[in-house]
Amino acid sequence: MNALVFDGQLKLARDYPMPRAPEGESRVRVLRAGICNTDLEIVKGYMGYRGVLGHEFVGVTDEGARVVGEINADCGVCPTCLRGDTTHCPNRTTLGIVKRDGALAEFLTLPTRNLHRVPDSVTDAQAIFTEPLAAACEITDRIHIHPTDRVCVIGDGKLGLLCAQVLQLTGCDLLALGRHAPKLAMLRARGIATTTDAASVRGQFDVVVDCAGNAGGFDLARQLTRPRGILVLKSTFHGGQASSFAPIVIDEISIIGSRCGPFAPALRLLAQKLIDVDALTDSEFPIERGIAAFERAATRGALKVQVII
Amino acid sequence: MNALVFDGQLKLARDYPMPRAPEGESRVRVLRAGICNTDLEIVKGYMGYRGVLGHEFVGVTDEGARVVGEINADCGVCPTCLRGDTTHCPNRTTLGIVKRDGALAEFLTLPTRNLHRVPDSVTDAQAIFTEPLAAACEITDRIHIHPTDRVCVIGDGKLGLLCAQVLQLTGCDLLALGRHAPKLAMLRARGIATTTDAASVRGQFDVVVDCAGNAGGFDLARQLTRPRGILVLKSTFHGGQASSFAPIVIDEISIIGSRCGPFAPALRLLAQKLIDVDALTDSEFPIERGIAAFERAATRGALKVQVII
Repeated sequence: MNALVFDGQLKLARDYPMPRAPEGESRVRVLRAGICNTDLEIVKGYMGYRGVLGHEFVGVTDEGARVVGEINADCGVCPTCLRGDTTHCPNRTTLGIVKRDGALAEFLTLPTRNLHRVPDSVTDAQAIFTEPLAAACEITDRIHIHPTDRVCVIGDGKLGLLCAQVLQLTGCDLLALGRHAPKLAMLRARGIATTTDAASVRGQFDVVVDCAGNAGGFDLARQLTRPRGILVLKSTFHGGQASSFAPIVIDEISIIGSRCGPFAPALRLLAQKLIDVDALTDSEFPIERGIAAFERAATRGALKVQVII
Repeated sequence: MNALVFDGQLKLARDYPMPRAPEGESRVRVLRAGICNTDLEIVKGYMGYRGVLGHEFVGVTDEGARVVGEINADCGVCPTCLRGDTTHCPNRTTLGIVKRDGALAEFLTLPTRNLHRVPDSVTDAQAIFTEPLAAACEITDRIHIHPTDRVCVIGDGKLGLLCAQVLQLTGCDLLALGRHAPKLAMLRARGIATTTDAASVRGQFDVVVDCAGNAGGFDLARQLTRPRGILVLKSTFHGGQASSFAPIVIDEISIIGSRCGPFAPALRLLAQKLIDVDALTDSEFPIERGIAAFERAATRGALKVQVII
């Protein structure tokens, strides 16, 4: 089958072996898949992954159900799983990220319990956003955002735009700080206050969400967080960074790492049209032009690139 | 009066002006004061402070009350104070740390509301530990330690030894990781499990408290924290450090900065003999030998150096 593979280099494989679903798993014919910043980081060396890329998809099972799928395949029996933290199972594989071939291929397999039926009112192009929207919902799943909170989202990439929309629904006093006027205009059209001028943002936010996707985001986020406030870290990127930790102690800031989130609320928000994802699609490429799709996705300011399989 | 002053260099001043208590403040004749790692960091340039050093003290007010004092003098009227976060008042001064002469002098002044009477059962030498013990109590004030939690304290300096003792009182499953066998022996004598071998500590602690006081503590603490666990940062030190933040996001770790704490519970624990501080005193110096006291305090492995005023 066709598959976009990373083996130290990004390649289109035309005769990649078709997967078979082991017991407990289902095989999914992929309809389309999205390219995420994590995929771009993997191609730079992040996670040391080798295999089929991609973890955002919508597809059809061999039984004919249109589904999206949670990307972490857990063992279900270790102490971490039994505690309920299945997305942190130390034995997990992760679709297109850790030891499990991903979604940028004609077929994939996932544990059947990971799959969620897509409501009829959600299109394929919208369903692609279930996984990143779930990651945005992880913020409100992990911390309590009060409707009275002052909240700042840093970063107007795809994840930042989704996080801002999810946070808006709490009724909080929200500011989105980004670099790209056209992207921020999408948020403003929905009533969200925005700015491109970090220097003008004075303040003391109760909650700051770092979706900058680069090393500069953290220090800026820290400076904008009030004493005893919460800094939510959403960005994963390859490499380290230098920071002084004393201000975190002095201001008693809480830093909350936040990764994958729950699919069910993300699908509800999509079905109920409470989140606009249509404006977040950048372009569509057939899988045969997958390399070009990655090039487009890596272009500064690009929104979601979708690959039609 | 005699005072230990830092003006870019540590000096014993013999004719430092005697302080007068402004309205709302009380003057305290200092009986003795402790040297804290923060003082050692200030002498290296941390906080850019200039003035009389010292913030751990016991003394007697002009009215004859034996007191210890909370070190942050807040304005009481700003939004941060009105929210109850008085130790984070942006207008605050901090005894011997920010814009307020400290305790290593014959007299100091503090807002009267900052002072706490010392119970008769607590000696002067013990009362010196109220401030760092309060900082240890800040951990249990900010986060919920379950009696079923696995907890690791990194660092067997003065603060680490106090934090371990406070955490032991929760009934949690506690391990103290340090470098100095004699200090860890003090904890073992109280029934706390200890080790000097970081490499042997495999595991997955629900809560890790970093009292290492150096840049290496953070990465070790992160490695020992289970996914979705809590890493409490207690160390403040001069300078930055390089760390990869991706593991914090991937493991969804919560990092809690923790600084000054509440004096009332610290005094209760001292009065009730639930915390042993007697073993934590290293040596006593008269203020005339204050420079030597700082040298001793900066010696690797030194415990609390007390300065008799």
